[in-house]
Amino acid sequence: MKHINNYVEENKNRFLDELFGLIRIPSISSISSHKPDMYKAAEYWKDMLLKSGADKAEIYETVGNPVTYGEKIIDPKLPTVLVYGHMDVMPVDPIDLWDSPPFEPEVRDGIIFARGADDDKGQSMMHAKAFELMVKTNTLPCNVKFMIEGEEEIGSPSLGKWCEDNKEMLKADIILVSDTSMIAADIPSITTGLRGLAYWQVEVTGPNRDLHSGLFGGAVANPINVLSSMITKMVDETGKITIPGFYNDVMEVSAEERELLGGAPFSAEEYKKAIDVKELAGEEGFTPMEHTGIRPTFDVCGIWGGYTGEGAKTVLPSKAFAKISCRLVPNQDHLKIADLFKEHFESIAPKSVKVEVTSLHGGQGYVCPIDIPAYKAAEKAYTDVYGKRPVPVRSGGSIPIISTFEEVLGIKSVLMGFGLEADAIHSPNENYPLEQFYNGIKTIPLFYKYFAELSK
Amino acid sequence: MKHINNYVEENKNRFLDELFGLIRIPSISSISSHKPDMYKAAEYWKDMLLKSGADKAEIYETVGNPVTYGEKIIDPKLPTVLVYGHMDVMPVDPIDLWDSPPFEPEVRDGIIFARGADDDKGQSMMHAKAFELMVKTNTLPCNVKFMIEGEEEIGSPSLGKWCEDNKEMLKADIILVSDTSMIAADIPSITTGLRGLAYWQVEVTGPNRDLHSGLFGGAVANPINVLSSMITKMVDETGKITIPGFYNDVMEVSAEERELLGGAPFSAEEYKKAIDVKELAGEEGFTPMEHTGIRPTFDVCGIWGGYTGEGAKTVLPSKAFAKISCRLVPNQDHLKIADLFKEHFESIAPKSVKVEVTSLHGGQGYVCPIDIPAYKAAEKAYTDVYGKRPVPVRSGGSIPIISTFEEVLGIKSVLMGFGLEADAIHSPNENYPLEQFYNGIKTIPLFYKYFAELSK
Repeated sequence: MKHINNYVEENKNRFLDELFGLIRIPSISSISSHKPDMYKAAEYWKDMLLKSGADKAEIYETVGNPVTYGEKIIDPKLPTVLVYGHMDVMPVDPIDLWDSPPFEPEVRDGIIFARGADDDKGQSMMHAKAFELMVKTNTLPCNVKFMIEGEEEIGSPSLGKWCEDNKEMLKADIILVSDTSMIAADIPSITTGLRGLAYWQVEVTGPNRDLHSGLFGGAVANPINVLSSMITKMVDETGKITIPGFYNDVMEVSAEERELLGGAPFSAEEYKKAIDVKELAGEEGFTPMEHTGIRPTFDVCGIWGGYTGEGAKTVLPSKAFAKISCRLVPNQDHLKIADLFKEHFESIAPKSVKVEVTSLHGGQGYVCPIDIPAYKAAEKAYTDVYGKRPVPVRSGGSIPIISTFEEVLGIKSVLMGFGLEADAIHSPNENYPLEQFYNGIKTIPLFYKYFAELSK
Repeated sequence: MKHINNYVEENKNRFLDELFGLIRIPSISSISSHKPDMYKAAEYWKDMLLKSGADKAEIYETVGNPVTYGEKIIDPKLPTVLVYGHMDVMPVDPIDLWDSPPFEPEVRDGIIFARGADDDKGQSMMHAKAFELMVKTNTLPCNVKFMIEGEEEIGSPSLGKWCEDNKEMLKADIILVSDTSMIAADIPSITTGLRGLAYWQVEVTGPNRDLHSGLFGGAVANPINVLSSMITKMVDETGKITIPGFYNDVMEVSAEERELLGGAPFSAEEYKKAIDVKELAGEEGFTPMEHTGIRPTFDVCGIWGGYTGEGAKTVLPSKAFAKISCRLVPNQDHLKIADLFKEHFESIAPKSVKVEVTSLHGGQGYVCPIDIPAYKAAEKAYTDVYGKRPVPVRSGGSIPIISTFEEVLGIKSVLMGFGLEADAIHSPNENYPLEQFYNGIKTIPLFYKYFAELSK
């Protein structure tokens, strides 16, 4: 490991500068005016791969944002690792809650603060730099391919097709991804399950214009009142989602597995303190770790309608809107759930309003077996760097494309995440500790080493 | 009536120009950046009163927006009419639904389109021009006082105190107000009842920051889901408001009065068609006219929280907000209701969230007896101009200050409204037909004539 530590130590400031260059590109995929930034980020990645040691690197167009692909093939007989990452980031609202500008990275107390510092610019850049390390120290034991996409945060709508079109080029033995987190900086873990996702926008229309709430109020259905009550009806008193058929395909987790999951360190008091709530919530009969790990959810991600400005405006609004998402568990099909929701939501609308449901995106859940060589290689690599065997955990998050890779390319993914819960990804003040960034760069070359050995 | 018709005919274009000058001042009282416009509007009114024939006119400061007061005292022994109107208007959002700029009045097909065209610039300007008519034609039979305030649309928070401080100056026999509507252009009516109002902003806080809906979703209460369910709980399946004690003081209307009310022309089909809804809503056991006339309401005027931008952002938001109002009926005390709501709303909050309720404004309901001289004078005036005896109706709207006038000044108000339901007050494309504007100017001098006669 000495050559690894030395190389990181000697190059750490440059690594950081290269990450900061990427972060400064505000590549928000969900806001169309940032389209040019997606191309800047793709170029940045292309240059990064070439200067890190790739034989070639190209920007590929898709119907959406571009994909940067690069590779270094040292010997067709050696195993091939396909690295996946994403160059796009989440929007930054509410902007006024940031302590420093989201696209101007700042290190405070050993922590990088910026949008994308962790998700996924910081984590994906570790792979470029670990690759450089192996190339420059002549220790690369596998062929390497990189595919860095620009639409992960909007559900990777174009990448499935692009993989389909480039199947031959993408041939590999394993996909390696860093886009998840560990339990804590001193408790390494590897994510073995991901939740799926379905996401809709709903629009409830009452009268054809905003009405005077005095002259019409009481006789005309208020679309905000109606939307609120429709949302309320979607989850029952016990926390179960009421959409008929919603749980039909949910993979029930065995008592044994639930016990294993319950063994992961978890303090409800600390969890509550960290987010400043007096009580947790969730489906009856399950623990908080189970709520986020093995059960589906129904969350309104955004709601708006009527007068939302300063002061008091009395109005009976014409329209109310909500963005609604369900996290799904392995075996639930997001397309089927998207339809079930639409059908049910429309069916419970009173006749006094019109309802429109638009499916915005979705993705399937994923499970990684813990007995494949790639998982074992990852386990050994973490153990070397962190001094502890990593815990396999089911994450509540979604990386919709991971299950697509399995379907389209027939390749499993190993999720070597180095994020921490406190990183505030998707939130104001997203951050990533320098130590995790550098530990990642140290862990990845060990994965390659063990993977090459175990694949023999 | 001939001198009236002639004077209006000769001066109609100038009357309109003078109204347009007032409309062009964007005097939105609920948005603090429009404060300078409130002073511009107050000056405009001062000049208007002086050039229309007032002996004096002054701008009075209050803790909020200014009040313009003017008077013409012709003989202390004659009855005195105190005209009340307001120079402030509602916000213009959603601005993109306007067919022409809200503060650039435009006449299309004989109808004025602009914010304030009816409410209340158009209607209050009729009084200034009717006053001018009486002065210039030497037919003024009463003393006249004008008080035009700038905070009606935010609940007149300063005018009660100002009336208290200027009781002597404001002495009068009747208050005359045009800030309501008639049933239709060919069915004159006089509003004899107004609903009261209570208005709150509520803030529901879940976690202390926006969270990743995958990593935390399912275990942490979502403040939008919670707010929706709290709103839903406020009204039961029959349309009754569930706040304990809410109906205690509601003045039940006798079967006889309900029958009279039911006699007013009303077509549910036309009503539904006008606002493009398939079904009406409301409390069981009451008609639509009763819903808006004699029953209290619970309407969410605005709601917001989480991600409301373009596309799909998966977030478990920290906060959700709503602006909520109840229309109240005579005898319900808005201060008591404000407290009852706050207490109840806070009591139904689950422990997983924090709830803050702020009372933004309120006002009492009002009833005008139909046997007082001023009501009879108004009845005769409308009959002369419209050829039909006006119907007394209970309006669903609120003019909170009207009951304050009665409490503080001990003076009843007669609500001679000339608005129409189609005027879209408080909405985009607010409008006011020229015919109603001119008919108002013709009707008002007749009111003065009959009021002077009946007061003898």
